Amino acid sequence: MTASRRTPGRRPGGPDTRGEILQAARESFADKGFSATSIRAVARQAGVDAALVHHYFDSKEELFIEAMAIPVDPRQIAATIVNGPRTEIGRRIATAFLGVWESPEGQQRMKALFRSVVSSDEVARMMREGISQMIIQPVSQTLDAPDAQLRVGMVATQLVGVAIVRYLVGLEPVASVDVETLIDRLAPVLQQQLTG
Amino acid sequence: MTASRRTPGRRPGGPDTRGEILQAARESFADKGFSATSIRAVARQAGVDAALVHHYFDSKEELFIEAMAIPVDPRQIAATIVNGPRTEIGRRIATAFLGVWESPEGQQRMKALFRSVVSSDEVARMMREGISQMIIQPVSQTLDAPDAQLRVGMVATQLVGVAIVRYLVGLEPVASVDVETLIDRLAPVLQQQLTG
Repeated sequence: MTASRRTPGRRPGGPDTRGEILQAARESFADKGFSATSIRAVARQAGVDAALVHHYFDSKEELFIEAMAIPVDPRQIAATIVNGPRTEIGRRIATAFLGVWESPEGQQRMKALFRSVVSSDEVARMMREGISQMIIQPVSQTLDAPDAQLRVGMVATQLVGVAIVRYLVGLEPVASVDVETLIDRLAPVLQQQLTG
Repeated sequence: MTASRRTPGRRPGGPDTRGEILQAARESFADKGFSATSIRAVARQAGVDAALVHHYFDSKEELFIEAMAIPVDPRQIAATIVNGPRTEIGRRIATAFLGVWESPEGQQRMKALFRSVVSSDEVARMMREGISQMIIQPVSQTLDAPDAQLRVGMVATQLVGVAIVRYLVGLEPVASVDVETLIDRLAPVLQQQLTG
């Protein structure tokens, strides 16, 4: 079995090949974590050529997002956060995050993801490494502060808590307050954590 | 089977009676929720006299705390929060909450509790009702604001998020920052949510 990076024109594999690659990716992310997993290693694990993995997935990040069934691209979220006026960063984060959760499909998929992260140490380990590289680090780099990573981490705590309390536990009145009110409450807190 | 409230001098029951009462309480809290469950109903469910339940548990709240294996008395937490200067309320909440999580035994039990709340809709329903009555409502009543319950609810989101991110997911740098730094970050945010 070869593992060359690109073999143009290679056949895209059988009907289950994509699923087999995703399964191999999950195993590799679980065994080695996000950083130590490569497209090449996933190809080896799946018993296919690396070019075939590249045929289905543009990058390791995309493979991770699909393998973990993350309903929104964290890199897109990171871009939404960093692009725009610095003074409105708290509001942009709250709006982007709640936007995912307020869509019925997004909510269902995020719930499943949150449940598996909280109940499995292995999933938690994979997620924290992937999220750290795809969101925490890029956002931190745009903040001009020595404690930027801790600031972004505190924002993560606030967002995770809102998701759990509103959507998974359903604690009132947070569970049924309208989303605009919730954004109004969150925006200044997130802004303070990041730039205060 | 009688269900009179008190029968002084009644025998305290067999060695497993306390455990049987707790099991009956869990079933009753699950079926009816916190408000609709009474000591009398739990006694009926367990097949014992209500006085025997009172022999082991002073109140429905205590029965709930034991049945759900909550490692800290929420009424004591509520008292810690409301007693003391209003300007230091954010710091008192952060200190009390993290104090429970930073003790090895408290952390182990809180983890188990959080996992069952997040993974089970039934446990979530029981907890949100009990916590609402034992913490959110008493603390809200001491705040002189029309949106007091939402303010306390937002504090709950921040605390739940810190617990999940630091202790269950282990996302850095929040996971390993020293507790004093974490309290310094949380105190102003909680203060703003409550009294800002």
